[in-house]
Amino acid sequence: MTPSYVSPSLNHLIEELMSLPGIGRKTAQRLAFYILKMPKERSEALAESIINATTRLQYCSICGNLTEQDPCAICSSEKRTSTIVCVVESPSNVLALEKMGAFRGKYHVLHGVLSPLDGVGPDDLNVETLLKRIPAEKIEEIVLAINPNVEGEATAFYLAKLLKPLGVHVTRIAHGLPAGGDLEYADEVTLTRAFSGRQAL
Amino acid sequence: MTPSYVSPSLNHLIEELMSLPGIGRKTAQRLAFYILKMPKERSEALAESIINATTRLQYCSICGNLTEQDPCAICSSEKRTSTIVCVVESPSNVLALEKMGAFRGKYHVLHGVLSPLDGVGPDDLNVETLLKRIPAEKIEEIVLAINPNVEGEATAFYLAKLLKPLGVHVTRIAHGLPAGGDLEYADEVTLTRAFSGRQAL
Repeated sequence: MTPSYVSPSLNHLIEELMSLPGIGRKTAQRLAFYILKMPKERSEALAESIINATTRLQYCSICGNLTEQDPCAICSSEKRTSTIVCVVESPSNVLALEKMGAFRGKYHVLHGVLSPLDGVGPDDLNVETLLKRIPAEKIEEIVLAINPNVEGEATAFYLAKLLKPLGVHVTRIAHGLPAGGDLEYADEVTLTRAFSGRQAL
Repeated sequence: MTPSYVSPSLNHLIEELMSLPGIGRKTAQRLAFYILKMPKERSEALAESIINATTRLQYCSICGNLTEQDPCAICSSEKRTSTIVCVVESPSNVLALEKMGAFRGKYHVLHGVLSPLDGVGPDDLNVETLLKRIPAEKIEEIVLAINPNVEGEATAFYLAKLLKPLGVHVTRIAHGLPAGGDLEYADEVTLTRAFSGRQAL
């Protein structure tokens, strides 16, 4: 449907940008024309950053997080306690938690959650290495920071069942009202969790 | 504010994506992780499309549109009548009009509109070449398809004043209710234009 008189490389750029999530034709066009207006070195920097990231980044052999050197900066850091490990679904979750900056333990990235419908079973998750880490790093507590949706819950319960017998303390981050949230507009599940998770003041 | 334990090339990719219009940190992160999950050849294709577009595309010496060869496909086309020229603000407007596919004349891209506040005067617009084109291409009609905002209106009136003495028929695309628009929700300016531009049925 792209018009015949439009230059191929412009079309190609637009098509490529459209392949990104949440970017439709209109947005792709706006981005394409913006990129074409950029100074050449800026647009090259953008392209190079894509190449660099995709070529340099790998998964840490210990925690499975995205890293340039293996083991990653967090796994090889002396400053971070290795007795407490935070289990997350994806590297993006690590980024979010690191931004918070409050957690000073280490991480373990599952690279997914249990999802039978999508054919994702326990063996498809990065669990094997986690089991090995428990004795190796003398892990005392494992904090499950998995998203509170159906698959996430299932994964959390599966891991708890799997890890508890290994004599490790398994916890889960609190679920409840978000900061600035309003009781009126909170859904039932959130409210129920907020109540069951109530704490003494 | 980017956390210390996040790998530089990931940060760099996110920063670069954030430099694009309408893309904040959250979106940039989502895009970055999506790009990292892509097959390598796909992400390379994306990067190459940026490089290719920025290196290959130039402005047509005749109409000022983005093109790979000069003159552009439209200017050098035999199929398009050169007696009617559509004047637009930017190459993206040409793309929009070409999508419509109804216009079979040629184009002229101003690369901006008069905007004294931003210090954009008549000399900063691609008008000189347009004046040369009128005798050279025996242009009979010039359709002003400039966005109907304050700067656009000013530019349209300036061009009309400039072009009419040259014995060329100057028209402007109709302004009125958009397709599927609702009288109730149309602003006064649009309604006024819709009335003043009413046509016999």
